[in-house]
Amino acid sequence: MASGSTTGNIFKITTWGESHGKAIGVVVDGCPAGLSLCEEDIQIFLDRRKPGQSKFTTQRKEEDTVEILSGVFEGKTTGTPISMMIRNKDQRSKDYGNIAEIYRPGHADYTFDEKFGFRDYRGGGRSSARETAARVAAGAVAVKVLNELSIDIFAYTKSIGEICCKEEAFDRSFIGQNHLFMPDAEAVTKAEQYLNEMIEEQDSAGGVIECQIHGMPAGIGEPVFDKLSARLAGAVFSIGAVKGFEIGEGFHASKMNGSVHNDSFYYDEKGRLCKETNHAGGILGGMSDGSPIVFRAAFKPTPSIGSTQKTVNKSGENVETVIKGRHDPIVVPRAVVVVEAMAAITVLDLLLTSMTSRMDLVKDFFEGKR
Amino acid sequence: MASGSTTGNIFKITTWGESHGKAIGVVVDGCPAGLSLCEEDIQIFLDRRKPGQSKFTTQRKEEDTVEILSGVFEGKTTGTPISMMIRNKDQRSKDYGNIAEIYRPGHADYTFDEKFGFRDYRGGGRSSARETAARVAAGAVAVKVLNELSIDIFAYTKSIGEICCKEEAFDRSFIGQNHLFMPDAEAVTKAEQYLNEMIEEQDSAGGVIECQIHGMPAGIGEPVFDKLSARLAGAVFSIGAVKGFEIGEGFHASKMNGSVHNDSFYYDEKGRLCKETNHAGGILGGMSDGSPIVFRAAFKPTPSIGSTQKTVNKSGENVETVIKGRHDPIVVPRAVVVVEAMAAITVLDLLLTSMTSRMDLVKDFFEGKR
Amino acid sequence: MASGSTTGNIFKITTWGESHGKAIGVVVDGCPAGLSLCEEDIQIFLDRRKPGQSKFTTQRKEEDTVEILSGVFEGKTTGTPISMMIRNKDQRSKDYGNIAEIYRPGHADYTFDEKFGFRDYRGGGRSSARETAARVAAGAVAVKVLNELSIDIFAYTKSIGEICCKEEAFDRSFIGQNHLFMPDAEAVTKAEQYLNEMIEEQDSAGGVIECQIHGMPAGIGEPVFDKLSARLAGAVFSIGAVKGFEIGEGFHASKMNGSVHNDSFYYDEKGRLCKETNHAGGILGGMSDGSPIVFRAAFKPTPSIGSTQKTVNKSGENVETVIKGRHDPIVVPRAVVVVEAMAAITVLDLLLTSMTSRMDLVKDFFEGKR
Amino acid sequence: MASGSTTGNIFKITTWGESHGKAIGVVVDGCPAGLSLCEEDIQIFLDRRKPGQSKFTTQRKEEDTVEILSGVFEGKTTGTPISMMIRNKDQRSKDYGNIAEIYRPGHADYTFDEKFGFRDYRGGGRSSARETAARVAAGAVAVKVLNELSIDIFAYTKSIGEICCKEEAFDRSFIGQNHLFMPDAEAVTKAEQYLNEMIEEQDSAGGVIECQIHGMPAGIGEPVFDKLSARLAGAVFSIGAVKGFEIGEGFHASKMNGSVHNDSFYYDEKGRLCKETNHAGGILGGMSDGSPIVFRAAFKPTPSIGSTQKTVNKSGENVETVIKGRHDPIVVPRAVVVVEAMAAITVLDLLLTSMTSRMDLVKDFFEGKR
Repeated sequence: MASGSTTGNIFKITTWGESHGKAIGVVVDGCPAGLSLCEEDIQIFLDRRKPGQSKFTTQRKEEDTVEILSGVFEGKTTGTPISMMIRNKDQRSKDYGNIAEIYRPGHADYTFDEKFGFRDYRGGGRSSARETAARVAAGAVAVKVLNELSIDIFAYTKSIGEICCKEEAFDRSFIGQNHLFMPDAEAVTKAEQYLNEMIEEQDSAGGVIECQIHGMPAGIGEPVFDKLSARLAGAVFSIGAVKGFEIGEGFHASKMNGSVHNDSFYYDEKGRLCKETNHAGGILGGMSDGSPIVFRAAFKPTPSIGSTQKTVNKSGENVETVIKGRHDPIVVPRAVVVVEAMAAITVLDLLLTSMTSRMDLVKDFFEGKR
Repeated sequence: MASGSTTGNIFKITTWGESHGKAIGVVVDGCPAGLSLCEEDIQIFLDRRKPGQSKFTTQRKEEDTVEILSGVFEGKTTGTPISMMIRNKDQRSKDYGNIAEIYRPGHADYTFDEKFGFRDYRGGGRSSARETAARVAAGAVAVKVLNELSIDIFAYTKSIGEICCKEEAFDRSFIGQNHLFMPDAEAVTKAEQYLNEMIEEQDSAGGVIECQIHGMPAGIGEPVFDKLSARLAGAVFSIGAVKGFEIGEGFHASKMNGSVHNDSFYYDEKGRLCKETNHAGGILGGMSDGSPIVFRAAFKPTPSIGSTQKTVNKSGENVETVIKGRHDPIVVPRAVVVVEAMAAITVLDLLLTSMTSRMDLVKDFFEGKR
Repeated sequence: MASGSTTGNIFKITTWGESHGKAIGVVVDGCPAGLSLCEEDIQIFLDRRKPGQSKFTTQRKEEDTVEILSGVFEGKTTGTPISMMIRNKDQRSKDYGNIAEIYRPGHADYTFDEKFGFRDYRGGGRSSARETAARVAAGAVAVKVLNELSIDIFAYTKSIGEICCKEEAFDRSFIGQNHLFMPDAEAVTKAEQYLNEMIEEQDSAGGVIECQIHGMPAGIGEPVFDKLSARLAGAVFSIGAVKGFEIGEGFHASKMNGSVHNDSFYYDEKGRLCKETNHAGGILGGMSDGSPIVFRAAFKPTPSIGSTQKTVNKSGENVETVIKGRHDPIVVPRAVVVVEAMAAITVLDLLLTSMTSRMDLVKDFFEGKR
Repeated sequence: MASGSTTGNIFKITTWGESHGKAIGVVVDGCPAGLSLCEEDIQIFLDRRKPGQSKFTTQRKEEDTVEILSGVFEGKTTGTPISMMIRNKDQRSKDYGNIAEIYRPGHADYTFDEKFGFRDYRGGGRSSARETAARVAAGAVAVKVLNELSIDIFAYTKSIGEICCKEEAFDRSFIGQNHLFMPDAEAVTKAEQYLNEMIEEQDSAGGVIECQIHGMPAGIGEPVFDKLSARLAGAVFSIGAVKGFEIGEGFHASKMNGSVHNDSFYYDEKGRLCKETNHAGGILGGMSDGSPIVFRAAFKPTPSIGSTQKTVNKSGENVETVIKGRHDPIVVPRAVVVVEAMAAITVLDLLLTSMTSRMDLVKDFFEGKR
């Protein structure tokens, strides 16, 4: 059983589909009515995670063309569920070798078998990174709503292996101009060199993605279990290969002193409440504090590597295996838009939820409707 | 509005209460019927986070005595909601100084006001760490169920500031024998020294808590959004002061290579599937893999410090403030049992959820009942 | 297991407690902040279902005094969970006779044992009508919010046995002036006579409760599964003893023709959209249509009767039993406020949910906050 | 906004699609893995609600061919979401007349506009009865699981207008042999005559559907809000056109005496606990009692009728309208399988939920897995 394919309270998404099944897709429920939306809006996001963009990503020839099946009428969302589907084209019958029989190290083969008794082993089935395309489609809708509310969200590759982008070299416009989605040209050069080494050595690398959200009103997040921080952590950690998540100073905060970590409040010349620093990453008491939300996710190295590995088969034997085919040396660049999507979905759900928090605003709302 | 005080799908908890209100409490719904349970079972856990245990924790004189109000009959759970309450005894009317008027740096004062229009400022109200006592009470129930299922769970202080327990010095039995809940005597000595400095400097420190879960069956966790990893991340990040969360190698995994990070499977002499290493922290594809679950949470330094801080008041003025009273230099030791509680609640909920995943087992279950 | 003690999406309530345990109570989460609320507001509602008000209701001496334990500060709701508790005073150890051993006809004794393996048999435990006091406390909060939004809700006894109030005799002010909560004095006289017969015959009666909601904005309810009609049906049917539910013409609609049942729309002289009739009971397509919501619930006769009944015991024997004590000949009058409470809770939850349905209104809301 | 298109806790379904959009569909999450399932299993159910089967149902030429897009591998469910889609073939651009401008009496046109600001008016959009095809597809899966658990579920037309099937004439095998899905041949003859009159008079009729579930174990349903009765009521009331719901004696129970309504328990010669009567309709205390579950739903007459009706347009005018096209004089026969589907979905969800209710059975389950 798994009813874990739905998430969100008001802005609610349900994903479905296996890597080599007929299609993958998502149903987005709870999107406010009247938002302009077309397939091109979604396609732009899907293209950012499209395979085959560089030598570092899989050469699978998927066009990943999205089809909106419901919930949009005359170019606008109707408030009813938006169903989106992406047909799997690279679905040809092929030799899956012994993949059905062995448990690949670092993969979900064994755990799926334990849970469900068997699994769709073709291309990783439901545990394939391909599943995230559905999240990206839903995220594209969420981002569109956030933009309408003047909220800006973006993610980028912060580090690959030991190579980390420098704060002082941060150039947002550069993120979209390189296939590693890094904001620092020098880091890109180094990372490419490192990844070439990985390819040569039939090995793989991990990395860190940072996401920032600007323009959030303060007070978003629902104490005590649906705090913005908690919901972001859960949403981002649901992406395969994520092994760490932190907000603001994150793990480094555990080594700081309170006198340094505390962000002082002040009113600027226009009377707006500001913070002198943002060690908190824009979240206090689990709610947005009006500063930019800043968080990072750590991705493990791709488990599919070309070299021979020791493992087991289902017949109870210890074996050696070589995973066939060409392998991405890293998943991080393609995961950037996935992190952004999950953050957008989460933030939007909590924004909508926040509308009912105050009696005076609720009253104003319904009086405005009379 | 905040309907964020309930969490869990089957084993569901709802907490309530403010630091200086009449009481705090929790309703545990979905606990299987027939579990032996008494107030002493809960009290043992509450005593682990009791204030006033050492000079490093608040001297508030709360006995934190729990009362079970429902759901237990003749010493056993009945399957109906278990309501537990802890009266607030240290509730005397007192001088809250200017706490109602200023926004303390690093606290939730400002965000609560933005969300709800005003706040119960006494002792931090709902955002007080006192709220976690309710979680611990619920966690005690969850741990009891887990133990019945031969699952062992424990947490401890991994590091305080820069002082980190050494793996080779790990002594589980020592955890409960020091007020910092560390498994390494040498680290305790150093940490105490460091915390004494913090007290002298009217400053505060953070730290890292590690939690381990042994004996978990494989296949627990619901892809794709309710993965065990995602649910643990969300649950632990809902604890105030948490700024980072990682599983297995965590952030370090982002710097490792696949050939090293991948844990090789093998069958041992008894034919049991094992892993040679546990870089994954016991989770593959978001599900338990049968190895110990290992995760860590990073806590920021306590925001309440004795020294003068710059901040603002509600009247639009930039001010300086000194927070009255005595302040804990660190929250980490008292948070150890909270992390353990949240992990137990989460793991139990997913264990119960997993019972419906296979048609053959569902069929067996109902045939057994006929 | 039973995690069925929580209901609602945004305005969410969790009830707990057994008839003869220490207390019963409810946690109300998601109530907008800033609502004036005190214990007296709740007490008024609880007093309407208080036992011992007439010879037709149980003489149990419960004062049912509510205590608000959290979520209210300086006379206003804070947006955090409102915990309310009613101590059980009539809790003295007493002779429960063979109630632990037999399964009373029409009661939940057998089903509780089947589900949970055993039960708290004292006074019916969790299946006692006493559980509804917690719902009424939560309902009192919901009604207060609805009234702030100019929504008027009330329920009354429509019929007892065969005796039905006449539409033409409807006098709303009379409802609160008789212990049967009927709006028709003549019906009260007849019903009292009938109930006296029931007492003499050691038998019991059922009845029908009608509830009306005036002032609802149109468009409330979430197609397709959380329609207002569906949610009301589910909420009201969760009250013990309810065996039927209908909206507008209800079952009678099945015998009508479309040309008669259809309510014609028209604009009145002020340009307001109206309906010439209200056969639909205020709901079209599962959403409120601006007309009064009108629904009815059918209650079965009280299962506890004084005469000898055939039944079984847990030891596998067919036995005869006489249920000790004095029995209410009817539950309907005390259930009137319970129906009203469940309707208020449901309607408020859907009202709050509706705030996010339109992009233009969402945008206005957040622009108003900047 | 509407996140009301998902229902269920463990066996969870999400429907999507508009009458004249590209397609309609459903995602079924939480179906146990290992169930044999193919498109033909679903098609059989869809064919039961197919239009054009008789002169009493719409002549729309939909083949309603279902496509399973995910969640099934090598003929068995994998435990991952089962996505099913039905393309809308009768989607040709056509003259919708003034349907976009007027509010049809008895339809959801007005309420959709109020909620969402505008609507997909083509064929009723999301409020079309066509939406129920998605429920039927999901129901087919649920019924298949129930059958594996030896639970038998079926529904039929109990009455049309004033014509009611006689208990003594009940012939289950006849239900599937007539287009009105009635178990009584004589009633069919009368009903056909009545419906012919309706067609002549350009009017419409309503009716009552009864559903029975045999073989349910006792103790299913989650007090207090997710009782089996409450969940069935909510599920069935979410079907468009339903105006009443009752279990067992239903509304009639309100006129009965306790001494008659109470079902006496007894042990039969094999020691099985039985009831002498089943006035309760198989539900006590909101849980199944082992007897057949029996409930009925009342459907209003079809609101689309051929004769001229008074109504309003969006421009603020009172107008007269004639709804174009051919209209079904009744929806009841096609709704029979929809009621059955909603009941199956609900019952299965609660069956799966019930597996965690007892500590001893939970322990046995996990010990069996070790």
